[in-house]
Amino acid sequence: MENLDELERQQWWDQIEKALDNEEIDHFRAEFLELHPYDQAQIFIEQSKKIRMQIYTYLSPDEMAEVFENIELDDIDSILTEMEPRFAADILAEMALDDAVDILNSLEQNEVASFLAIMNAKSANEIKDLLHYEEKTSGSIMTTEFVRVKSSMTIREALNHLRKEAPDAETIYYVYVIDDDKHLVGVISLRDIIISEEDWYVSDVMSDRIVSVPAGEDQESAAKMMRDYDLLALPVVDFQNHLLGIITVDDIMDVIQEEASEDYSKLAAVSDMDKVDTGAWMAAKKRLPWLIILLFLGMLTASLIGRFEETLDKVALLAIFIPLIAGMAGNTGTQALAVAVRGIATGESDQEGKLKILAREAGTGLITGLCCGVLITVIIYLWKDEFYLGLLVGISIMLTLIVATLAGSLIPLLMHKMKVDPAVASGPFITTINDIISILIYFGMATAFMDVLL
Amino acid sequence: MENLDELERQQWWDQIEKALDNEEIDHFRAEFLELHPYDQAQIFIEQSKKIRMQIYTYLSPDEMAEVFENIELDDIDSILTEMEPRFAADILAEMALDDAVDILNSLEQNEVASFLAIMNAKSANEIKDLLHYEEKTSGSIMTTEFVRVKSSMTIREALNHLRKEAPDAETIYYVYVIDDDKHLVGVISLRDIIISEEDWYVSDVMSDRIVSVPAGEDQESAAKMMRDYDLLALPVVDFQNHLLGIITVDDIMDVIQEEASEDYSKLAAVSDMDKVDTGAWMAAKKRLPWLIILLFLGMLTASLIGRFEETLDKVALLAIFIPLIAGMAGNTGTQALAVAVRGIATGESDQEGKLKILAREAGTGLITGLCCGVLITVIIYLWKDEFYLGLLVGISIMLTLIVATLAGSLIPLLMHKMKVDPAVASGPFITTINDIISILIYFGMATAFMDVLL
Repeated sequence: MENLDELERQQWWDQIEKALDNEEIDHFRAEFLELHPYDQAQIFIEQSKKIRMQIYTYLSPDEMAEVFENIELDDIDSILTEMEPRFAADILAEMALDDAVDILNSLEQNEVASFLAIMNAKSANEIKDLLHYEEKTSGSIMTTEFVRVKSSMTIREALNHLRKEAPDAETIYYVYVIDDDKHLVGVISLRDIIISEEDWYVSDVMSDRIVSVPAGEDQESAAKMMRDYDLLALPVVDFQNHLLGIITVDDIMDVIQEEASEDYSKLAAVSDMDKVDTGAWMAAKKRLPWLIILLFLGMLTASLIGRFEETLDKVALLAIFIPLIAGMAGNTGTQALAVAVRGIATGESDQEGKLKILAREAGTGLITGLCCGVLITVIIYLWKDEFYLGLLVGISIMLTLIVATLAGSLIPLLMHKMKVDPAVASGPFITTINDIISILIYFGMATAFMDVLL
Repeated sequence: MENLDELERQQWWDQIEKALDNEEIDHFRAEFLELHPYDQAQIFIEQSKKIRMQIYTYLSPDEMAEVFENIELDDIDSILTEMEPRFAADILAEMALDDAVDILNSLEQNEVASFLAIMNAKSANEIKDLLHYEEKTSGSIMTTEFVRVKSSMTIREALNHLRKEAPDAETIYYVYVIDDDKHLVGVISLRDIIISEEDWYVSDVMSDRIVSVPAGEDQESAAKMMRDYDLLALPVVDFQNHLLGIITVDDIMDVIQEEASEDYSKLAAVSDMDKVDTGAWMAAKKRLPWLIILLFLGMLTASLIGRFEETLDKVALLAIFIPLIAGMAGNTGTQALAVAVRGIATGESDQEGKLKILAREAGTGLITGLCCGVLITVIIYLWKDEFYLGLLVGISIMLTLIVATLAGSLIPLLMHKMKVDPAVASGPFITTINDIISILIYFGMATAFMDVLL
């Protein structure tokens, strides 16, 4: 399927390229505009600057706006700077409002100001209203291009109003009902409108069971609501329940994907998930800060082992099991961490008590610790014929697993309590902390029971 | 917000509970049915079996079906077994088709057979048609409850048809156009229908630029298409382009969330992400298999170090840096792994060549390796006044980072090539492999340059 798409796109593009080469505007427009805007954007972005400059002269700002709505934010900055500022401003004005705001939010402040200055006043004002919402809040991803009606309208009036508003609205499938003071009082779906009699009143058909989200609320909460309630759009309100805008499902799909990618990359300690196509320098720049922090944490572990040098000198065999014990601590900690972070992200941990989670993790640590501890004792006894060494490693692993599992869940819960994003406690971070804990346990016990081992 | 919701729900439930206690059916129904089905499900699931049994007698199968559509699959099995089979079958028949299929797919085969046997024939047949699609394919999440029209219809006819079909359809916002042989030939949105003249023909208004997905294709591809093209529904076709069903955006939101959670839990080596509310036994059962595999891999590392016992005996100080080096290898490997797995998941790695990714990762490893290697050499020299030991650790870290970064991206790419889900190469798995590599490098070099160190 994917290859076919690729092939089809290639064939289509060959046509389009020929049209560009021969400077056949009409042929180019006929072929290019027939494509879905997503495909237009894919093709557009692959072109050389020279060809893109040609395309700008062939398409109207209105047509370019649709292309722009489908270009990734990372790519758009360089494109904006290569084009005539006036043309760029016109494109931004024609775009879906929320997409234009996303783009402007990614630019430098003076760039934003200059675009807004040359843009038509109406669009500039609409955009300004949306620019001040903090990143990742519900307000920052909403649009104000939606349809609202009064509850006193008839279905016929509502439908006519809808037809008039349709070209500019982000969605017409939900229509929001407001009172004279712009309070959100109800919602009516196009489905309800279609199956109602034309002379009924909106107030008879609308649902006043409305789910809404405050503008300052995290976008993740909005995503959870839309997912739970199966909504295509979610109204955004201020603290007095005035209707400010709506969030549509296409943007929420992106939010769900982003938030999940973010948690994932944090678990792997990649500060900002590199796209596969970034170069080595860029990738190294993103990963190095983490690696260096972890290097220093690792030095801490090293200096800790250094304090047990005497013990090590006596029983060099002890060193053999350092990676095993530290590794197990890291693994179980990462597991517990992942479960806790996801639980917090999906809101499940709020319903359950935090103490209950910790009690459960302690239990899990005890069970897994016992199993692994007994197993390793037996293995080392059979393999090295060293019962006491086996017992030492076994008990260390047991204690380590209990403590590491607890730490893996306690740390994100504490962070959440302190309003820090728990996903920051990345896998390697927890792993390093657990390295230290496990080595303290292992060498502490070895030093205490040195007599038995020698 | 969240607390308010909780409070509102509690107040509402107090009303409902009072009605149940006093056996006031009408009062209960008035209060309960006023809630959104998602909230109905939340309240329903929290009740004792006794109260649930009472609720069954107060609600029709049709009303219970809406509650069922909002209950998590994990909870539904025990609920189905507590109710009268006939009533359960009626509920399943009344549910949205795709949700009923999801439930039946999660049951034992003989349970499915007995439910289908007592269900009305029409619903049973519709369900049977959908049951045979393999898990996680597009076919398995589609529904056949959608609206289709002929291209020769007028807009008026289409709208009337739509009104008639609306109560049963999963969505009426996209209407699919088929020819006489049921081939998919176009799509028309309700938006287009609303703004068109009533005597126009469907063929004039419909778009024949249709994005569709084959029934056997992975659900992740369907999710990517819907996200890229901002669709509310995606048609599912067979290899001859016959229209089989549609996937709606509410189901795709769940797919995006699930697939991301799956990758996340695999990176953390939690075979199946425990929900936070599972007990300690359940959690231990899910995590133990991974821990035991990793324990054996850890033993391999231990036996590897054991082979360098002689070297260790001579320079016990070497042991101090084992966790540091192994840890750095694990960290950088996990970073490279995460980038590669996400790249594969989002399809970005297909566009770029695999060799190019590897070259990039080699470059990244070289840069990060050089930085960390120089840094650690300097630190150890300043801290321990041991230049050669510092150099040994520094060069080991440099080599380790290069190899571990490469391994972190090579392994998932190879797995993808061999059609194995690359996310299986979990973080701890890569970490353990890199532990082994790093120890070989470190002790290998230490043994070779022993003369300088002593």
